Amino acid sequence: MQYVENFKSIIDRYNIIFFDSFGVIKTYFGLVPGIENTFTYLEAQKKEYYIVTNDASRSPAQLAEGFHQMGLNMISANRIVSSGMLTKECLDLKVKDGIVAYLGTANSAHYIETSGLHTLPVSQVNDGNIDLVNALIFLDDEGFNWFADLNKAVNILRKRTIPAIVANTDYAYPLSVNDVSIAIGGLASMIESIVGKEFIRFGKPDSQMFMFAYDLIREYRSVSKKEIVMVGDTLHTDILGGNKFGLDTVLVLTGNTLPADAEIKITTTGIVPTYICATAAAGLDELAL
Amino acid sequence: MQYVENFKSIIDRYNIIFFDSFGVIKTYFGLVPGIENTFTYLEAQKKEYYIVTNDASRSPAQLAEGFHQMGLNMISANRIVSSGMLTKECLDLKVKDGIVAYLGTANSAHYIETSGLHTLPVSQVNDGNIDLVNALIFLDDEGFNWFADLNKAVNILRKRTIPAIVANTDYAYPLSVNDVSIAIGGLASMIESIVGKEFIRFGKPDSQMFMFAYDLIREYRSVSKKEIVMVGDTLHTDILGGNKFGLDTVLVLTGNTLPADAEIKITTTGIVPTYICATAAAGLDELAL
Amino acid sequence: MQYVENFKSIIDRYNIIFFDSFGVIKTYFGLVPGIENTFTYLEAQKKEYYIVTNDASRSPAQLAEGFHQMGLNMISANRIVSSGMLTKECLDLKVKDGIVAYLGTANSAHYIETSGLHTLPVSQVNDGNIDLVNALIFLDDEGFNWFADLNKAVNILRKRTIPAIVANTDYAYPLSVNDVSIAIGGLASMIESIVGKEFIRFGKPDSQMFMFAYDLIREYRSVSKKEIVMVGDTLHTDILGGNKFGLDTVLVLTGNTLPADAEIKITTTGIVPTYICATAAAGLDELAL
Amino acid sequence: MQYVENFKSIIDRYNIIFFDSFGVIKTYFGLVPGIENTFTYLEAQKKEYYIVTNDASRSPAQLAEGFHQMGLNMISANRIVSSGMLTKECLDLKVKDGIVAYLGTANSAHYIETSGLHTLPVSQVNDGNIDLVNALIFLDDEGFNWFADLNKAVNILRKRTIPAIVANTDYAYPLSVNDVSIAIGGLASMIESIVGKEFIRFGKPDSQMFMFAYDLIREYRSVSKKEIVMVGDTLHTDILGGNKFGLDTVLVLTGNTLPADAEIKITTTGIVPTYICATAAAGLDELAL
Repeated sequence: MQYVENFKSIIDRYNIIFFDSFGVIKTYFGLVPGIENTFTYLEAQKKEYYIVTNDASRSPAQLAEGFHQMGLNMISANRIVSSGMLTKECLDLKVKDGIVAYLGTANSAHYIETSGLHTLPVSQVNDGNIDLVNALIFLDDEGFNWFADLNKAVNILRKRTIPAIVANTDYAYPLSVNDVSIAIGGLASMIESIVGKEFIRFGKPDSQMFMFAYDLIREYRSVSKKEIVMVGDTLHTDILGGNKFGLDTVLVLTGNTLPADAEIKITTTGIVPTYICATAAAGLDELAL
Repeated sequence: MQYVENFKSIIDRYNIIFFDSFGVIKTYFGLVPGIENTFTYLEAQKKEYYIVTNDASRSPAQLAEGFHQMGLNMISANRIVSSGMLTKECLDLKVKDGIVAYLGTANSAHYIETSGLHTLPVSQVNDGNIDLVNALIFLDDEGFNWFADLNKAVNILRKRTIPAIVANTDYAYPLSVNDVSIAIGGLASMIESIVGKEFIRFGKPDSQMFMFAYDLIREYRSVSKKEIVMVGDTLHTDILGGNKFGLDTVLVLTGNTLPADAEIKITTTGIVPTYICATAAAGLDELAL
Repeated sequence: MQYVENFKSIIDRYNIIFFDSFGVIKTYFGLVPGIENTFTYLEAQKKEYYIVTNDASRSPAQLAEGFHQMGLNMISANRIVSSGMLTKECLDLKVKDGIVAYLGTANSAHYIETSGLHTLPVSQVNDGNIDLVNALIFLDDEGFNWFADLNKAVNILRKRTIPAIVANTDYAYPLSVNDVSIAIGGLASMIESIVGKEFIRFGKPDSQMFMFAYDLIREYRSVSKKEIVMVGDTLHTDILGGNKFGLDTVLVLTGNTLPADAEIKITTTGIVPTYICATAAAGLDELAL
Repeated sequence: MQYVENFKSIIDRYNIIFFDSFGVIKTYFGLVPGIENTFTYLEAQKKEYYIVTNDASRSPAQLAEGFHQMGLNMISANRIVSSGMLTKECLDLKVKDGIVAYLGTANSAHYIETSGLHTLPVSQVNDGNIDLVNALIFLDDEGFNWFADLNKAVNILRKRTIPAIVANTDYAYPLSVNDVSIAIGGLASMIESIVGKEFIRFGKPDSQMFMFAYDLIREYRSVSKKEIVMVGDTLHTDILGGNKFGLDTVLVLTGNTLPADAEIKITTTGIVPTYICATAAAGLDELAL
């Protein structure tokens, strides 16, 4: 484990950078101060980068649009790998026809929709169409009535032997400096323990997220895992997942892991990043673009 | 393990009978057919009995009133031991003053209220009173807005280092022949895993439920555990808890455990009742009162 | 939560003191310095006390003998409540005949032996006697061959539908300042997850331990839980269990919880003792016996 | 879910077959009867196949040699993907120097050894070399003293903040018709819960196993997941993992899942194979090679 002063030196050592989004590029206050320098430097150095995020609430195009509105215009949709994309791929390959019931916003479901499959909010499943439901997917914690629809999801899964897919492994997410919100991953785990079935989960630290980004690169050029570094703010998703996939890893301290807690958390969990760096924002004065 | 034809023979063998309520005395259809014979016979034989239930949604008086409305007039409030009563005792002993925030109906909280403590729905906790909140209790899955108040409960427990008490260990409960409903115990477990703190739980199979009923008897006479039998429909609450407390146990097949599944469930879980009996309703023709 | 300078003031406030053993009265170095003052003061003040310990490796008589050899002559066997005693009571009440197979030393099994039951090390179970095995108990991590006998225990429990009783809830115990040892509770949990059955566990934080001690007192006099305080070095056994049973609790810092970690551990776990005191050794100069 | 009479029709539908080893190709009795027909037919049809196995006890060359000794001469080492290979890759990428301590046979460690790394049995770690230990790996349940070395592994992981890698996710494995044996995955989980750190695990159902096999193919030709079918006897490893990776799946009934239990297990777990086939042995009379 090595402390790095300026994130610029990380960029200099690798050809490809994978970034987590929340806590690394942005927080609930807006962009991480100076993060635009990092992307300017990446473009100047012609380094590749990808945003690898446990976010299935919106499509890559919408996630990119969100960055643009904050002033990060260079991040395009094809740079973004989300757990929602893996859910979509799994449905494409494994569910041939019928209805995919979902918990989430209409927006999150719109993106998942594929030829031949009809998406339907859990609230609209009834005795007349339940036999056509061939998958149930957990997309977002918003867009439905928790009391009515979580109970309905339990009963759909007790009646239908179908895959249940969770497009976000997080149990909670930060809402403000002081508050967190229960994430769809937490709700899905509760339902999983009640119905006693095994759900399929997509999201870091699972390797399939990293493999998806890795494959995007391999479509146009050959690559070695040694060229890639994963940058994240959370030990048990970004760093554990990156380590397991065989990547070097950088822990930044602008999000989930506070500067005062980093060392103790690393020792307690045994999850060791290759580097620790205060921020993913490249130091200004030394940029000399 | 011994099969028993007529529940009457169980009553003949013990001085005191502990009954689970749902699945043993009543179901979503009403009373278990013939169960009134059991209580008539118990009274005729001057045998003692207690209802030991994981139900904190209502007071013992209201639970007794529920039996009366179904026609079981002999069951009085002092025969009922609920997980809500243990929650109330714990608050009495451990929380000296301030506010007890709760998730549940106003009705469930009314019963818990004790001198010196003020109960307040989680929805009414705010920046002005949060520092006075000295306990958070999980009473019932109804009576609050799941989205708003489950999220609020998470954040109260992140900000306040206070006991969180769960008055029901069940994860789900039956709503009809086909449907179940998520119980407050399931919601509490999700919140426990999100906030990473250890909650206090009351309810079968925990020994404290059985001890509470046992102590009610010992207040007026001496008693041995060998005089008591626990009757239940669920292996991992009623039977496991009864076995651990040192009681003989009867599994009945009118509720959670279907006749076709009983043997396989016993083998799979390793939870072995002393007896299996189709129903807790004493056989009519042989009653000869 | 209140900081207390001198443990003497705790003794002055309660009629009955429950002590954990390891980390409170003794450590791997020997007695906690000055602890003999505490017991001298207790006797002088005619206060009652009990040692409540998750130790099933020896009988109460042997545990008392251990204290005597260290110089604490006043602690007699009838002051000791161990998880082994609950295991013995459970066997007395629930297992009528046959063989009780065990993992542990011959010494630990000798104490458990009761009229009508024959104890046998797991290593001596074979095709000729396996059908007579009516319980399997986990007593101690020593006294058997881990490879041969843990595997044998798994297969006995797959073949026989019998109660499995764990006489120690701890996963590990301290061996020296630097090293811990895997406890029988940890080995039992591994086997439980492999065979998929539900084991019966005795030991703090489970209420049955506290109830057993409480009942010893009630055999000769009436008592209220408000008269008792539980003293321990471990939040999730001594303090959580004491709180749940409705007792006031004291966290001491001579064992499992280091002075530097106490506050953060209390905040993280949400397990709050009534008092924190550096040691259970009563301050010498202020004793003024 | 579709029942298939003759495994030959599965081969006809796909270009590439992934096989689990134990329970599919062989059992403790030897080869699954008729399985050689399957491999003869695969070769005749010029279909590709891979053996994907949670076995880190031996190298691919040794695993292949095992098949040859049973008479399956066509299975070469480069057809075998084991969880040990992923462990080796992870060490290559993430551990630059020092000692890799291991639990397992010398044989299992020999294969893992890579340039620059020195493997050492846990038993030989001591005060003089512990500071050089940069990873601890769990390879096999044999080859070490369980009591001494499991305890030592716990203490190494408490003292060193290093990756712990488990090369087998199974908790137990079949030893004979009647007996199972605790697997290194079960021992590792016990140690993980005692030290409270997060281990890295390789093996089905984790996607990285399937990806590794998938990448072997992509090294010499392009391939779609739709061309591949995964054949296994265990729902929660072979079938769950195959489904999640996006492959079609076949459950065979010659191993872990008995014919009488297949439907109930599928309903209970919610893990649904694309096909069910009694055996992976292609029907003889219809082969007509």
